[in-house]
Amino acid sequence: MATIFTKIVRGEIPSYKVAEDERYYAFLDINPLQKGHTLVVPKREVDYLFDLDDEELAGLMVFAKRVAAAIGRSVPCKRVGVAVLGLEVPHAHVHLVPLTEEGDMNFANAKKSFSDEEMRACAELIHSNL
Amino acid sequence: MATIFTKIVRGEIPSYKVAEDERYYAFLDINPLQKGHTLVVPKREVDYLFDLDDEELAGLMVFAKRVAAAIGRSVPCKRVGVAVLGLEVPHAHVHLVPLTEEGDMNFANAKKSFSDEEMRACAELIHSNL
Repeated sequence: MATIFTKIVRGEIPSYKVAEDERYYAFLDINPLQKGHTLVVPKREVDYLFDLDDEELAGLMVFAKRVAAAIGRSVPCKRVGVAVLGLEVPHAHVHLVPLTEEGDMNFANAKKSFSDEEMRACAELIHSNL
Repeated sequence: MATIFTKIVRGEIPSYKVAEDERYYAFLDINPLQKGHTLVVPKREVDYLFDLDDEELAGLMVFAKRVAAAIGRSVPCKRVGVAVLGLEVPHAHVHLVPLTEEGDMNFANAKKSFSDEEMRACAELIHSNL
């Protein structure tokens, strides 16, 4: 069965898309730690980040770097943090989280909530800054 | 002035080395979240992960993948999590943290403490599993 991220990549589940190329897809996390919190996934369904072959892993990170730079230009923050936990959805995904302080990437924090309009505007802004 | 990680790479500050090649260096975090918590750094001093050029970033992640696999073979865990915060030491570093549950990579958690002997044995075990 397709993972939820595969359904998002295929457009079967809507997402706030930030960036896409032939192999990778980036979209806003709908339960964000911070405004602009983005998930980057390989289109190919692979459970865990380090199950990707070297070339695909390298490509994912170079894609994520480009997305992170756009997030940094779109959302007030000092850095864009990176996290891979890999215990929930069995489809590798990299969290990109705008950070002002280290505690901003604490996954135990309450998730933030933004309106559909705010999420759409945020995704569009990041996309325009790619 | 050289960063603390450059001093570690040069051997001016001792470390529990796990792996090394021409461009990258991995060693145990001395304030670990979990046993086996490892830091992977480029030998070249670059402040932030995504300041690395694409090829160097790709190489770092492929090196980290190899180290993560060795950690997984050495320490009881479900996955090896990945985190880059980048707000403290101005020298890019990737945290590799053995995870049994998501909360295991919460940087607000109290850090664990192991004896010199335990740290040395842990680094040697991971190294032997590369």
